[in-house]
Amino acid sequence: MSEIIRSLQRDLNDFGEDLHLIGAEALAGRHPGEHPDNLGAGAMAAPATPEAAVAVVRWCIDNGVPMVPQGGRTGLVGGGTSRPGELILSTARLARIEAIDPLARTATVGAGVTLQALQEAAAEFGLTPGIDLAARGSATIGGMIATNAGGILAFRNGVMRHQVLGIEAVLPDGSLFSDLTRVLKVSAGPDIKQLLIGSEGAYGFVTRAVLKLETFNPLRATALVGVPDATAALALIAHFRAQPALQLEGAELMWRDYFRDSAGERGFDLDWLARETPAVLLLEVSAASEAEARAALEDGLAALWEEHGLTSGIVAASLDQARRFWAIREESDFIYRLHPAAPSFDVSVPPGALDAYVAGLEARLRAVDAGFAAYVYGHVADGNLHISVFGEGAAAPAMKGPIEDAVYAGVSDLGGSFSAEHGVGLEKQRAFLAYGNPVRRAAAVAIKAALDPKNLFNPGKVPFA
Amino acid sequence: MSEIIRSLQRDLNDFGEDLHLIGAEALAGRHPGEHPDNLGAGAMAAPATPEAAVAVVRWCIDNGVPMVPQGGRTGLVGGGTSRPGELILSTARLARIEAIDPLARTATVGAGVTLQALQEAAAEFGLTPGIDLAARGSATIGGMIATNAGGILAFRNGVMRHQVLGIEAVLPDGSLFSDLTRVLKVSAGPDIKQLLIGSEGAYGFVTRAVLKLETFNPLRATALVGVPDATAALALIAHFRAQPALQLEGAELMWRDYFRDSAGERGFDLDWLARETPAVLLLEVSAASEAEARAALEDGLAALWEEHGLTSGIVAASLDQARRFWAIREESDFIYRLHPAAPSFDVSVPPGALDAYVAGLEARLRAVDAGFAAYVYGHVADGNLHISVFGEGAAAPAMKGPIEDAVYAGVSDLGGSFSAEHGVGLEKQRAFLAYGNPVRRAAAVAIKAALDPKNLFNPGKVPFA
Repeated sequence: MSEIIRSLQRDLNDFGEDLHLIGAEALAGRHPGEHPDNLGAGAMAAPATPEAAVAVVRWCIDNGVPMVPQGGRTGLVGGGTSRPGELILSTARLARIEAIDPLARTATVGAGVTLQALQEAAAEFGLTPGIDLAARGSATIGGMIATNAGGILAFRNGVMRHQVLGIEAVLPDGSLFSDLTRVLKVSAGPDIKQLLIGSEGAYGFVTRAVLKLETFNPLRATALVGVPDATAALALIAHFRAQPALQLEGAELMWRDYFRDSAGERGFDLDWLARETPAVLLLEVSAASEAEARAALEDGLAALWEEHGLTSGIVAASLDQARRFWAIREESDFIYRLHPAAPSFDVSVPPGALDAYVAGLEARLRAVDAGFAAYVYGHVADGNLHISVFGEGAAAPAMKGPIEDAVYAGVSDLGGSFSAEHGVGLEKQRAFLAYGNPVRRAAAVAIKAALDPKNLFNPGKVPFA
Repeated sequence: MSEIIRSLQRDLNDFGEDLHLIGAEALAGRHPGEHPDNLGAGAMAAPATPEAAVAVVRWCIDNGVPMVPQGGRTGLVGGGTSRPGELILSTARLARIEAIDPLARTATVGAGVTLQALQEAAAEFGLTPGIDLAARGSATIGGMIATNAGGILAFRNGVMRHQVLGIEAVLPDGSLFSDLTRVLKVSAGPDIKQLLIGSEGAYGFVTRAVLKLETFNPLRATALVGVPDATAALALIAHFRAQPALQLEGAELMWRDYFRDSAGERGFDLDWLARETPAVLLLEVSAASEAEARAALEDGLAALWEEHGLTSGIVAASLDQARRFWAIREESDFIYRLHPAAPSFDVSVPPGALDAYVAGLEARLRAVDAGFAAYVYGHVADGNLHISVFGEGAAAPAMKGPIEDAVYAGVSDLGGSFSAEHGVGLEKQRAFLAYGNPVRRAAAVAIKAALDPKNLFNPGKVPFA
């Protein structure tokens, strides 16, 4: 057992069941999640109350022990990695859905509640958190706040920042910041909770949150449509978004290589779609009935077919088939089976710039190595692309810089971001320093020094002070 | 001419038409806006480029001159007031709509663009800024950012923070912060632009912004409905929000006194509505056609009539009549004609708590003085109430504290806010200090010291460091 855990057990033994302290032996049996170093500290505190969380943070401040906040460990960029000598602050025991208020359309939850648990609880009231993403079963609300998570509904509801009304957190000075606002409108001076959103633990440890909920409509229809390019996909999206009797529920674009290999790996007989078209658009709409949703989808596609050069399409005949369509988009782990260690990226560019960006990307990758290519897929309505580069030698360390430069070229000038929804963590440190806004970073560093002068909250991560 | 203007003319004469410097004589002819002290500095710099704005801010830093950012001067709480020895930074000449991108659904605008100008430009693309408020003709995008403005569509689209994608601003160290992000998804470290939203100029001078746009549907129907209480209004709102073929475009509740006097002052023969009912709800919905919107509104009201104790209602027969309905809600200046200097407030509470809050408010006001009563009206779907207290002696200085305490009692504990959308300015300073979150304020003060160590940006205002 580490010295940190032993000392915590000695100093904070009053908290009993409200504070679990977990050493390296017990952690050895746990899954580290998406990064092998997540449990590297070998020491974890899992408070069950804000008071216990405050006590742990104050103990760490007094003893100079760095802290790493951790949720579902689904982060893809290493933002939750920890090292010996650090203490993991886990939200695992802050996992209660405390209240759902259907009139105010709000949910009050512990930071360790998973997205899926909240989705299921909200669905009983015909509501949804308004955010959805593939890691819903493990990703926690606290982690989604820390990374300002996005996902498949952001084009309509915005990102996590737009759903967060209130936050309770322990700040780096050990104070309990309890701003459990339950209303949309607050204009009462600087909104400090915004600093906790998307800062990956740099400014505090989120323990509780109040989220805004949205109307959930399960009456849907889903289609896969072959499109010539992102521009055509955006025209379809604009058409369906402008229909007052419809809601667009999903708009995901997969360029040909991604669609072919994902569908193929899953054994789906959709090769005809991939053969005929440069990209496949997954569309989902909801309406007053499933029949109306389906009719609107079919009518809309028919109306736009010729003008936008649509080549092929299939509307799901059953919920089960719709789920299979979504699996082609969401279950991307085939990439690493086919191309172990393929360098992966998560950029956003304004939607109108997507086609030029993707064409430029492919050319830039070929210029690095004629054998390089990329899987490109993502949330086309908000311009968020996921990119995995493959080809012989693409995973070699020497290729890291050239491939990154090929992916990030021009993104900032377009008003996009080198990290759209995954965060910075360790893996995007070079991008943060090379492609991030330097004035923004300088202000973030100044604030870090003001709020966390000992640099104890997730040190070595953003803002890399 | 003030010494400040003379010195600026001497030191910054290179900027020519890009920088207007305006002295007390020229300002004397201008309307001060909603607060008589807005032009109190008697010195204004109106840059037309970010470079000119940077030069002015650096000059002020070098010369220790405090600065007061100013937009349309429509603020209701004195956030833009200025004093001799200060320099007003005006956005008036940063008033260009630079781009509207219908595919990305974004607008890039100068901070001095009025909301109405942007609404009109976006409407040409079937889009809207997604924020609407009564001061639309004068309120500027920069000012709306500085106060995190809300308005009548917040229940659906969120507040200004949710519509802002990018900001360009001059920070208190004189650096140009240019984060003109044009995408929804950014998870690239601490999002410093959030600090500029809702901070009333404490952390910088906003010069440009990128805003998200929403679908605009003009095919609408509008009704006034007599309801027994806010709970019944919320049930109607929930009904219409759950209809997939409809969009709720407005939901404004006016308690009886407000409705009676506003309609009466405008000479509308709607006394029957006010007589029969404790409150009147203005509802507006949009649909695939005006006929469908009207039918859905009539059907919905009929279906809910008995269950929710509706007493009376009228659906507008024309666009002109709908405008008159809105004028009853929006044109609240009759209050100050009938009750000069009536103390006015802008609070938010979770919608489900509205009836208990209003009943408690009325009782607390009567406890202060049996003759006190209040106009209560506002954005019921998000729990934002505007309140004006009247009765003999209500405007007396000695009543300020007791009335404030009656209005703010319990608001924070409910998860509401003492200022929902108007900001803090000077008038809510006492409330900020007495009812604001102290941990939040301490962090805001620490950040103020880090970013603006000379306290030159809107000094004497939030966070009152």
